Amino acid sequence: MRGFVKRHSLEEVIELLKKRIKIIGKVKLPFDKSLGYVLAEDVISDRNVPSFNRSAMDGFAVRAKDTFGASENNPIALEVAGEITAGTTKKIGIKENMCARIMTGAPLPANADAVIMAEYTEEQPDNIVKIFSSVSPGKNVSLIGEDIKEGETILRNGHMIRPQDIGILAALQKLEVTVYKKPEVTIIITGAEIISPTEIKHDEKTIDTNSYILTTLLEKINCPVKFKGIIEDSEEEIKKTIEDCDEDIILITGGTSVGKKDFVPKVVSELGELIVHGINIRPGSPCGLGFLNDRPVFLLPGNPVAAVVCFDALIYQTIQLMQNVNPSFPYPKTKGELSRKITSQIGRIDFVRVMFENGLINPIRVSGSGILSTLVRANGYVIVDKNHEGYEKGEKVDVYLFG
Amino acid sequence: MRGFVKRHSLEEVIELLKKRIKIIGKVKLPFDKSLGYVLAEDVISDRNVPSFNRSAMDGFAVRAKDTFGASENNPIALEVAGEITAGTTKKIGIKENMCARIMTGAPLPANADAVIMAEYTEEQPDNIVKIFSSVSPGKNVSLIGEDIKEGETILRNGHMIRPQDIGILAALQKLEVTVYKKPEVTIIITGAEIISPTEIKHDEKTIDTNSYILTTLLEKINCPVKFKGIIEDSEEEIKKTIEDCDEDIILITGGTSVGKKDFVPKVVSELGELIVHGINIRPGSPCGLGFLNDRPVFLLPGNPVAAVVCFDALIYQTIQLMQNVNPSFPYPKTKGELSRKITSQIGRIDFVRVMFENGLINPIRVSGSGILSTLVRANGYVIVDKNHEGYEKGEKVDVYLFG
Repeated sequence: MRGFVKRHSLEEVIELLKKRIKIIGKVKLPFDKSLGYVLAEDVISDRNVPSFNRSAMDGFAVRAKDTFGASENNPIALEVAGEITAGTTKKIGIKENMCARIMTGAPLPANADAVIMAEYTEEQPDNIVKIFSSVSPGKNVSLIGEDIKEGETILRNGHMIRPQDIGILAALQKLEVTVYKKPEVTIIITGAEIISPTEIKHDEKTIDTNSYILTTLLEKINCPVKFKGIIEDSEEEIKKTIEDCDEDIILITGGTSVGKKDFVPKVVSELGELIVHGINIRPGSPCGLGFLNDRPVFLLPGNPVAAVVCFDALIYQTIQLMQNVNPSFPYPKTKGELSRKITSQIGRIDFVRVMFENGLINPIRVSGSGILSTLVRANGYVIVDKNHEGYEKGEKVDVYLFG
Repeated sequence: MRGFVKRHSLEEVIELLKKRIKIIGKVKLPFDKSLGYVLAEDVISDRNVPSFNRSAMDGFAVRAKDTFGASENNPIALEVAGEITAGTTKKIGIKENMCARIMTGAPLPANADAVIMAEYTEEQPDNIVKIFSSVSPGKNVSLIGEDIKEGETILRNGHMIRPQDIGILAALQKLEVTVYKKPEVTIIITGAEIISPTEIKHDEKTIDTNSYILTTLLEKINCPVKFKGIIEDSEEEIKKTIEDCDEDIILITGGTSVGKKDFVPKVVSELGELIVHGINIRPGSPCGLGFLNDRPVFLLPGNPVAAVVCFDALIYQTIQLMQNVNPSFPYPKTKGELSRKITSQIGRIDFVRVMFENGLINPIRVSGSGILSTLVRANGYVIVDKNHEGYEKGEKVDVYLFG
């Protein structure tokens, strides 16, 4: 039994990941199945949207200048040349002092340049309509190319696809998009003391929670997960299981420290390279990182809170890098005021579980870092960076919300 | 053609939803398939977690008082009674001045009350170990019930299940949970001018984007969606299609305004009740709400930005209410500084699309509300409430981030 030789800082490990992690591939997907994927191409519009001058209201298509001077007390009468419904291909021409009844979404007649809303008109006999308001050119019209112009780059390589982006892909009839592949992830749980929740609980055994937490963290971002099960703390078994993996990322929890039965670091060193073992974060310090033929292997503490912190601080970023995305923390941040003091240590990054409510950040009182219920009681983290010994009560700090 | 009779305020509509929307049902799910569902029961622990005093470190289990006074210069020698690995059921007893080698996760011997880390010890011949530091009782030990106590309510009815909660459910061997059903949603697109993106584009036609945006907004929150297709602007067809729906929520876009061809309000009134038609929001003002036998029907504008705003401001809340969750806006908020003025109107709520970067909020310049690309260029909203005429440049305001 020996201590960690050297602890890396979190920044060092992130820099290392940036250097070593490669994009794992691209794939073509139907546009409507691409939500949450990252674009591997620029999307350039091949057309104007709208493709015609489109009425944005129900009313009358007019030549704006024919309406100038019209008011409540001084209406102007125009001749109604006909009606244009949405989707029609019928052409109606209008000349001076003429207009056409028009529906939202319908194409404007050739000479019309504005639409006057039905509310400001009054229909008369003999195809005459009175206009009680003037409109300027372009009013209530979606002009050709107003939304998207032909040749415009509307979405860029590296952009994560959201619902509105899928709408734009539809509008451009871009039925297939090239995106970065999401990595497949293997989860291996080690430890003779670990049993599955479906087994009968014996004293002195600990129930596996890590595989479920990691699986659902990965499911949330739609990464395919393979669970290799709970394996024995034997060098042979660990080696065989790791050699069997062909997924893009390997997560292995337990047996990753520096104790007598901690075979994982040894096995990873022998099969590939163990680059990091020990990181200056809390919780999560026993975390390690190795590579097997360029595939990252994360050695995660058995302690579930530490495993989650390692996921949030490192694995999520690795998945981003594999999809050509700048690594970032997975949670949105906002500011809040601390309801009590937080203490940390210079040189170490602390992930403090907090309950954020009505602008106030309440750090969860913890007696040990293995306390999963602290993560359950929390709705966010405050991260104390390595240059701080902590934060004072009342201080305004960033809080990351699980959401 | 006539105007809206009365516009409702957004608050009125939300209050109405709170009164009218009912929980649609409960369902039992395997705990590991419950991510993102809302609990319909309290989860009360039937056990202590951990269920035994568990070592949190590799080292030596000791009686703390035997270590008092030990230091670098004054080590204390203890007899090693044996070794306790994790998962073992072997019992080792220790007496005064004895200890046991112990691994992380292993149960402490009956008389031990602390663990001293391997780093602070030195093994000697004849089962003797030198201790170079003292420990207080409880040090490096996860005590029985430290994480969760028997009888404790650990998750409450109404709580949305996150990855860490699934971990807790595993730890408690709660293999099945009762959750609220997520509503099934039907999407109907109307409009003679609307074609599918898979069809050949003709002039004067507009491509359906709404069904794709609404479908993926619903997929993001794992609601089952049925798309009824693009149907004709005929009263008969709209009636038949709505009557055919047996989903919990009906979304129908287009033909929902007050124009000649806007049959949807009429049909909804006839089949059930149309309660709201016209809301003081921008975009989204032509939105309507009706009920068919207690099932809500949302009349959505054809304009995709307005449809998204109605989803964010009303439909998302309806889905929450159906799962017994307090309605809220779907995006996390933070504060930022406006890079330029935003104007609005007293009495109306404006959803202003913005690009938020480095603390600065840049409102997207828009010429019309039908501009889907504004939502694509944006990463959030600023909401101007009905008591404001807008916000000044430099003002600090809330920004909701799409994420």
